Amino acid sequence: MPKLATIRTAGGTRAVRLDGDRLVDLGFADVGAFLAAGSPDVPKDSATYAVEGADFAPVVPNPSKVVCVGLNYGSHIEEMGRDLPEYPVLFAKFADTLAGANDDIAKPAETDQLDWECELTIVIGRTVRRADEAEAAGAIAGFTAANDYSVRDWQFRTREWLQGKIWEATTPVGPYVVTPDDLPGGVRPSLDTELTVDGVVKQTANTADLLFDPVHLVQYLSTITTLRPGDLILTGTNGGVGHARSPQEFLVGGETVQITVQGIGTITNHIVKR
Amino acid sequence: MPKLATIRTAGGTRAVRLDGDRLVDLGFADVGAFLAAGSPDVPKDSATYAVEGADFAPVVPNPSKVVCVGLNYGSHIEEMGRDLPEYPVLFAKFADTLAGANDDIAKPAETDQLDWECELTIVIGRTVRRADEAEAAGAIAGFTAANDYSVRDWQFRTREWLQGKIWEATTPVGPYVVTPDDLPGGVRPSLDTELTVDGVVKQTANTADLLFDPVHLVQYLSTITTLRPGDLILTGTNGGVGHARSPQEFLVGGETVQITVQGIGTITNHIVKR
Repeated sequence: MPKLATIRTAGGTRAVRLDGDRLVDLGFADVGAFLAAGSPDVPKDSATYAVEGADFAPVVPNPSKVVCVGLNYGSHIEEMGRDLPEYPVLFAKFADTLAGANDDIAKPAETDQLDWECELTIVIGRTVRRADEAEAAGAIAGFTAANDYSVRDWQFRTREWLQGKIWEATTPVGPYVVTPDDLPGGVRPSLDTELTVDGVVKQTANTADLLFDPVHLVQYLSTITTLRPGDLILTGTNGGVGHARSPQEFLVGGETVQITVQGIGTITNHIVKR
Repeated sequence: MPKLATIRTAGGTRAVRLDGDRLVDLGFADVGAFLAAGSPDVPKDSATYAVEGADFAPVVPNPSKVVCVGLNYGSHIEEMGRDLPEYPVLFAKFADTLAGANDDIAKPAETDQLDWECELTIVIGRTVRRADEAEAAGAIAGFTAANDYSVRDWQFRTREWLQGKIWEATTPVGPYVVTPDDLPGGVRPSLDTELTVDGVVKQTANTADLLFDPVHLVQYLSTITTLRPGDLILTGTNGGVGHARSPQEFLVGGETVQITVQGIGTITNHIVKR
């Protein structure tokens, strides 16, 4: 299965498959619906769209769950002054928190501490509960990228991070979902990641350095609750966030922030004042 | 608007209105869909169902957001050894976390620390973002009850509570949604609440003692993200949870746990081993 995406068209969102310089319509409104239907074959006379100028929606616009892992790279745990966790640190987002890969991101007027976080993201392809290791591996439809833009002052207002993590349309996910077969390392992929702000590199990592790997995360979460096709798990960020820099750096509006995850693609956001 | 509920029927879930000893079909699959449609008038020839033996679904089975407030009564803040928070402490649940008011609750095999939490719950009736006080008050469709059964050992495994709060089908919400007009105190209701385990009173409170009241919570959350019809906000629990007792008390299976919120109704759950 090649690269999948969800794009916005005049007739609403469509699930598509990348085929050269064309995006082939998969017959579903989004990648979540396509996965939930069991990834059926695509009719030969499907509509196609140009890749150039495609308007990417969140790869799954309406997942039943978006779960994020808080501290999952040694470099970020160290810069945030935390101990190595014994268990994955988990928090949630809502569907309304998601954005398209290349959408503008609005810096809310209520904060001066908008920050970036480059993250490999798991896309669930099968319904699982209390999965063993093989079932967990089999439940991973593929991987995508995300930028978990975080409102740090609100994140640290209280003992729970949620209120800094669910600002409307602040988490671009995309542009493509790529199957484990097409990535080095498969369900435990080894992918170089890079985040830049106005072309200056702020974060680099390799996803092989995740403390809790994707299979472990799926297994752990499925112990607690059912995971469903289209559910998203953001696997955590590495060192180099603005909050942990000396002096601290935050996005004020006007910047261009880019994330590239090897084999998956690039997320480009212009930060706009709101 | 009288008491509303979502019940399970042979033909799927239905939104209903309490009318004497009958439940009148509102023409929608659930209370969330009814509210999203603007609470239209009910056709005169609607089907009705007996109240007796009605099988309550979660009042809103598939809300776009379930947000919970962590420390919102002085008595619970004190027993958990926390300081009075300056801002609401927020965490999330998923639709899969919800249960019907009288459903059996499965004690997961993975814990010996299943605990109870009696909570007044806000049901959103209108789409709002960055609401002022009047808009926030107007966005409250009504109130219901919830028991935020919590898996304490998992809750405290890491610095984020989420993983103790999202176990499948562990948060009954219901049985009825009651409009502010029908409750003493209106959008800031003064309701006696009580939780019992096998008939022994474990928690009693009055919802007038909430540190952050419902209007404030709606306004605060709407600053961060859009609230939509059917969204649920669990307003927090008061003193008397099992974790904070000396010695600690947890549910092992076989108990009957009841919550009664004045004017709203009773949630009754049998705890079963899983």
